[in-house]
Amino acid sequence: MADFQRARSDAAKQQREAAILAAARELGARDQIRRVTLTDIANAVGMHKSAMLRYFETRELIFLRLTAEGWREWSIALRADLDALANASADDVAAAFARTLAARGMFCDLLAQAPLNLERNVSVDAVRAFKLVTHAELDAIVAAVRRLLPRLTESDGVDLVAAATALAGAMWQIATPGEELAELYRDDPRLAHAVVELRPRLERLLTAQLEGVLLHR
Amino acid sequence: MADFQRARSDAAKQQREAAILAAARELGARDQIRRVTLTDIANAVGMHKSAMLRYFETRELIFLRLTAEGWREWSIALRADLDALANASADDVAAAFARTLAARGMFCDLLAQAPLNLERNVSVDAVRAFKLVTHAELDAIVAAVRRLLPRLTESDGVDLVAAATALAGAMWQIATPGEELAELYRDDPRLAHAVVELRPRLERLLTAQLEGVLLHR
Repeated sequence: MADFQRARSDAAKQQREAAILAAARELGARDQIRRVTLTDIANAVGMHKSAMLRYFETRELIFLRLTAEGWREWSIALRADLDALANASADDVAAAFARTLAARGMFCDLLAQAPLNLERNVSVDAVRAFKLVTHAELDAIVAAVRRLLPRLTESDGVDLVAAATALAGAMWQIATPGEELAELYRDDPRLAHAVVELRPRLERLLTAQLEGVLLHR
Repeated sequence: MADFQRARSDAAKQQREAAILAAARELGARDQIRRVTLTDIANAVGMHKSAMLRYFETRELIFLRLTAEGWREWSIALRADLDALANASADDVAAAFARTLAARGMFCDLLAQAPLNLERNVSVDAVRAFKLVTHAELDAIVAAVRRLLPRLTESDGVDLVAAATALAGAMWQIATPGEELAELYRDDPRLAHAVVELRPRLERLLTAQLEGVLLHR
């Protein structure tokens, strides 16, 4: 009976956690991560803020969980695209990275937020759990890339994923400036360089990086 | 007499602004940008917060001014290093970017903060003024790079500076995780990839990028 009650309460707890994450995911995709507060999430899920803190001790922990989820989901999609390639060139691999990242705006937002804000306001254990997820996906992605481009070393692969995720995070922020600034950039010809298209730039940069590395392998 | 008073009051205003920026610069370098509040700056400069808001309407405006200042200062140092090179290779140019950026921790911090946070909480005019500074420095840096590597196009140069500043911002955040997390990464062998050294990684990535681009020029 105690076991049954524990199980029921564990299931209820997981259901609540899933509801909180779903609300955060929806708000984050709509409003950008930096604008979503703990109160917004509590309101969306219909819980009191103090009750929600029993599930996630900070707003940053919620978004760090979504970042881990984002790594898993992106890694599966990217590896499926890579595994479908045959005789891949550097350009094909770079295009798969650029396409799958640019299609995941909220994940790009989270990639920039994680080291700046999210990892700084959670427990060390939460960061460890997060890093173990990202490292497992990193290893899986590097293995998939090296099956296609076997001259690359393990360290080349880690550099590629590090560059792709750092650039996607930073450039998504630049490419998504909000309506008022987007208008400024369009209207003032002196600011033409401020208009950034994420996918083609990411593809160009990663293609060049891979081709440059392969010169020495 | 009115002119004299105006001049005296303008000079006093500039002096106050300079004192505020100096305090923010010192706190930002010591504590990282995200931790420095408007109250911290007001306390350091010995002003009331409400009085300080007459000079800078938000904390983000103060740090956006420091980011513009950082671009000017970095651009001068980088161009001096580039101009001192003769018969430069891609590696020499990449090394100059990596060395000058890695030596400027607070500027790297600001490079990541600007699109995420700073540009989002100031007026459109403030963003325009900021962008005009960064674009002028961007143009000057691209011209200096193309004097050394004349096969690069203007657009290649813009890509290089965009990648260098985006990677420096993102990777500085990752390479500077705070003491507690740095200890975690050192102690848990499963987290070895989390330890990032900014300068060598930046140099490797930018060298590969330049060499890859030059293959097609």
